Amino acid sequence: MTGTPAPFTADDYKARMDRAAATAADAGLAGLLVAPGPDMVWLTGYRPTADTERLTVLVLAAGQEPVLVVPTLEAPDAGRAAGASALSLRDWTDGKDPYAATAPLLDVDGRFGISDNSWAMHLLGFQKELPNTSYVSLTEALPMLRAVKDAAELERIAAAGAAADSTYEEIKKVSFAGRKETDVAADLADLLRQFGHSQVDFTVVGSGPNGANPHHEAGHRVIERGDMVVLDFGGLLHGYGSDTSRTVHVGEPDAEEQRVHDIVREAQEAGCRAVRPGAACQDVDRAARAVITEAGYGEHFIHRTGHGIGVTTHEPPYMIEGEELPLVPGMCFSVEPGIYLPGRFGVRIEDIVTVTDDGVRRLNSTPRELAIVN
Amino acid sequence: MTGTPAPFTADDYKARMDRAAATAADAGLAGLLVAPGPDMVWLTGYRPTADTERLTVLVLAAGQEPVLVVPTLEAPDAGRAAGASALSLRDWTDGKDPYAATAPLLDVDGRFGISDNSWAMHLLGFQKELPNTSYVSLTEALPMLRAVKDAAELERIAAAGAAADSTYEEIKKVSFAGRKETDVAADLADLLRQFGHSQVDFTVVGSGPNGANPHHEAGHRVIERGDMVVLDFGGLLHGYGSDTSRTVHVGEPDAEEQRVHDIVREAQEAGCRAVRPGAACQDVDRAARAVITEAGYGEHFIHRTGHGIGVTTHEPPYMIEGEELPLVPGMCFSVEPGIYLPGRFGVRIEDIVTVTDDGVRRLNSTPRELAIVN
Repeated sequence: MTGTPAPFTADDYKARMDRAAATAADAGLAGLLVAPGPDMVWLTGYRPTADTERLTVLVLAAGQEPVLVVPTLEAPDAGRAAGASALSLRDWTDGKDPYAATAPLLDVDGRFGISDNSWAMHLLGFQKELPNTSYVSLTEALPMLRAVKDAAELERIAAAGAAADSTYEEIKKVSFAGRKETDVAADLADLLRQFGHSQVDFTVVGSGPNGANPHHEAGHRVIERGDMVVLDFGGLLHGYGSDTSRTVHVGEPDAEEQRVHDIVREAQEAGCRAVRPGAACQDVDRAARAVITEAGYGEHFIHRTGHGIGVTTHEPPYMIEGEELPLVPGMCFSVEPGIYLPGRFGVRIEDIVTVTDDGVRRLNSTPRELAIVN
Repeated sequence: MTGTPAPFTADDYKARMDRAAATAADAGLAGLLVAPGPDMVWLTGYRPTADTERLTVLVLAAGQEPVLVVPTLEAPDAGRAAGASALSLRDWTDGKDPYAATAPLLDVDGRFGISDNSWAMHLLGFQKELPNTSYVSLTEALPMLRAVKDAAELERIAAAGAAADSTYEEIKKVSFAGRKETDVAADLADLLRQFGHSQVDFTVVGSGPNGANPHHEAGHRVIERGDMVVLDFGGLLHGYGSDTSRTVHVGEPDAEEQRVHDIVREAQEAGCRAVRPGAACQDVDRAARAVITEAGYGEHFIHRTGHGIGVTTHEPPYMIEGEELPLVPGMCFSVEPGIYLPGRFGVRIEDIVTVTDDGVRRLNSTPRELAIVN
């Protein structure tokens, strides 16, 4: 177990907000409208207790003090956020128009980046209040905003990865045969927490035919001897994410099961080898996909190869055909090819990696060979 | 404990989708774009495992079969939703443009209602793909869509309210003095689950000065003898919500504490008495607020009087000044005035009520007098 990292300070949040505002200006934007969720947590440390129809928005613009617009009754909570002293609060009361209250902070004919997950009703509210403004999703406008991690962030993601590795080493020791998927999923959640996670986001246990659905979570199916079992688990530790997949086999695999697993393992290696500064996101997908396609299973690799990770377990950048964004040192993302044979079984292998100055560093280091469990 | 109600069938969901499409047409809309969340659960029974940047949208239009657009890898899950047989699935694969895939279902210059909580990036995607379309938030366009509950829904909300009442009766028996707010909050969560809730949404325990922040949840403050304690708890039972507040006192209250509690109780009674078909939502707020204002505490009632409840614990309609929407039999909402004295204490009393043919029916029936706890 590593120690607890020092909390981020108001200065850390101020630096992030300043950088975001400057980056937005460089991109020709009049400013950013940041919604509750990962963007707001990363920029201010503030996480409202619920994301509701009551408008909460951080307004960032170069040369302007950051302003967090909040409902009056949430102002006390917002004022206690770690970054609160680096911004000013403006509250609005139930019954007033929050868009009119925010409008004086905005260039009336500016173009703004808005958090991807901002509610459509809030975007419509701004579009109606200021009909000459225009908007672009924050990820489309500034895809790198949260994507490149600094040293303090990398330390946290590495710690989360190490905890996920410890979880995998322990889960291999539990009984699989004769227990429900949900029982093994509960074990995974307990282990993630035991190894320091404050939040468990997912504990996928896809046994036998259930493994062929990449979004299967865990169900009441009783795991049998002879099953392939996809394990995919992660959550947050010190505010940063883990996300690891390994596929295990209950007892000895047959030749085809071993072959499919070998192909996915080779694809995962190829994807990781493609990671280096200047390569495009899509190059990682292409490298992994080529291995699976050449082996004849291309139609059974039905998702992208990876996604970013940071204050969430699932965020840009995406390793996918068509994504030409160049990889930059400090980016952290998953490399997770899979093969899914409907009605039979699935295999997925996933590590979190980070781009280094000259290549790649894996943040998961447990064996990727097909493990035999009981 | 009441029995488990029969699950909603594909026919139930079909009826809701048909009604929604017809209502949208009556409102001059070309159709509805329904996002994951309460609108989608209510209309289809489908709840994706996560609400992500991958577009999932239900397209409803009068005279057109409902179509649920989903990412390919989530299609198996969507196909198992209770309402799946009443709609057709259209899937799109990672790397393809989901807005282009959805566009053929949409009138190219139509006006659409879109779920309030749809992601802004999805709205921007539709606006870009079909520049002659226009949009309005679903709640603004069709405020009554989910607001009026049928008999099967009312049965569920009443059952959730009864479980919350049982929770309150039991929580009064636990020790308050000397325990942390979080300990009492954990008791509330355990009791809600014990009385049948499948999901706990909030367990507010606001003791002493913490009670003066209406959005305080529960913290590490140790409750003391002499504290007022605001309790506000709820969640989902059989898919429908509970939400109840009572304020208790640890030991005997002083004269001012009793007086403030009496005022809030009278305000809550006045709010409930204002509930009847044809009254406006704002009339409920006005009735409750008048009592508090006349008693000299108007500036300390800093939120609206109530919110709707259904497949969520917090939804339209809102009992707030300016909301002229008429009350209709079958609407269910909270009546929850409060007084918040900064640095000292708070009082809130909340019941869920439903509009009947000639007035109001409370769905919480525990005493509203100030209870003394230990």
